[in-house]
Amino acid sequence: MMMQSLPKLPEVTAAGTPLKPMPWVMLRRRATPHFEAKPIPEMALRTILELAGQAPSGYNLQPWRFIVVRTRDDRARLRRVAHDQERITEAPVVVIAVGVTSAWRRDLDEVLREGARLGAGPADDASIERRKRAALDFLSGVRMDVWVNRHVMIAVTYMMLAAESYGLDTAPMEGFDAEGVKREFGVPDEDEVVALLALGAGRKPDKAFPGRFALGKIVYDGQFGVPWQGRKPGPVL
Amino acid sequence: MMMQSLPKLPEVTAAGTPLKPMPWVMLRRRATPHFEAKPIPEMALRTILELAGQAPSGYNLQPWRFIVVRTRDDRARLRRVAHDQERITEAPVVVIAVGVTSAWRRDLDEVLREGARLGAGPADDASIERRKRAALDFLSGVRMDVWVNRHVMIAVTYMMLAAESYGLDTAPMEGFDAEGVKREFGVPDEDEVVALLALGAGRKPDKAFPGRFALGKIVYDGQFGVPWQGRKPGPVL
Repeated sequence: MMMQSLPKLPEVTAAGTPLKPMPWVMLRRRATPHFEAKPIPEMALRTILELAGQAPSGYNLQPWRFIVVRTRDDRARLRRVAHDQERITEAPVVVIAVGVTSAWRRDLDEVLREGARLGAGPADDASIERRKRAALDFLSGVRMDVWVNRHVMIAVTYMMLAAESYGLDTAPMEGFDAEGVKREFGVPDEDEVVALLALGAGRKPDKAFPGRFALGKIVYDGQFGVPWQGRKPGPVL
Repeated sequence: MMMQSLPKLPEVTAAGTPLKPMPWVMLRRRATPHFEAKPIPEMALRTILELAGQAPSGYNLQPWRFIVVRTRDDRARLRRVAHDQERITEAPVVVIAVGVTSAWRRDLDEVLREGARLGAGPADDASIERRKRAALDFLSGVRMDVWVNRHVMIAVTYMMLAAESYGLDTAPMEGFDAEGVKREFGVPDEDEVVALLALGAGRKPDKAFPGRFALGKIVYDGQFGVPWQGRKPGPVL
């Protein structure tokens, strides 16, 4: 069995405080410019990784891999291929998020079979074959680099929000030399280094909130460019 | 002012029940194969869109746009360019998530200035110029299609989890004809149609949970390919 069922999760943060509802977490999360030299409790780290692994993916292929970088030497090595960003050596843990562009081929059959055994679709050989062909067909038509980047970012977002829920701070980073990261950390050439995520306790104060676009600028009503106004409460159908 | 500060959010779901902590939402969310013909309360829809807009982005450029598709005709039109998927016309709302590949250039100056006014960095002209050059420099070196796909997926993930928090079901879809969607909904050629997200009340029962990879398969310790075992509780630094 390569698959596992739902993990059990701690019901409070590492500090023992109750978990906040998601919307509050989304509003309060800020990128962390600097971290305290303070370890991450092992249980919190495991929980965050478990939750990242719960992200949804096309055909349940889970084309993400996460390299947990936590020794002093490894973080120094990572910093050298990531524009010398200080927070990489400050944070106790930095995760390298990778998208695998072909490893999912080896998993496809078993992912579909185990999913079917768990009740997600018919388990007979013909049905599995049909789903397999549909998946291969669809995936042969996508830009694979774009496809894995999309998927990995779902999981990175889960990881970021999960960390915040459990009382940790995060800094997602897109400034790095992908070739250097691959070389230093053994990532296959064909794969995509999607993002780095530093995890730890942020040094106070948090960065100020820089604001967000008003809804009318980013939300359109039925046609690109037509600002969404919302409606008076009432049926939408 | 193009920017707005933090939105006020409802503290309960549309059904009046308390909001769940994030980890529970992440564990319970499933893709919805079929939707009930039931409208989405306007307040829930607005809340979900507001939360999607809170996603973080490089230089706060927010390169996402969301077309809310909700009339019967528009959903039928979308279904025709999205592999005829039934749930597109079943769901009361389908959001087309778009990544803008150059519109952010027009926003860059004001985003940095308003952010600085809100306290996120020095506000003098020289500092703004320096940050602007750094952003343009960085962004000239990225694959723009990959970059916007990554960013838009953060916001789509926020939207998906926000919807789930407020008691709605979602179905992210990657099966569509991007050129057709652009043509039908007026999306500029240069931009990226990243995903569709159907929102509504799922028809019971939920799809079965197909399982996820065991942690040792997707999490590596310090080097790609070295399964992460976790450690006994103790300092990580």
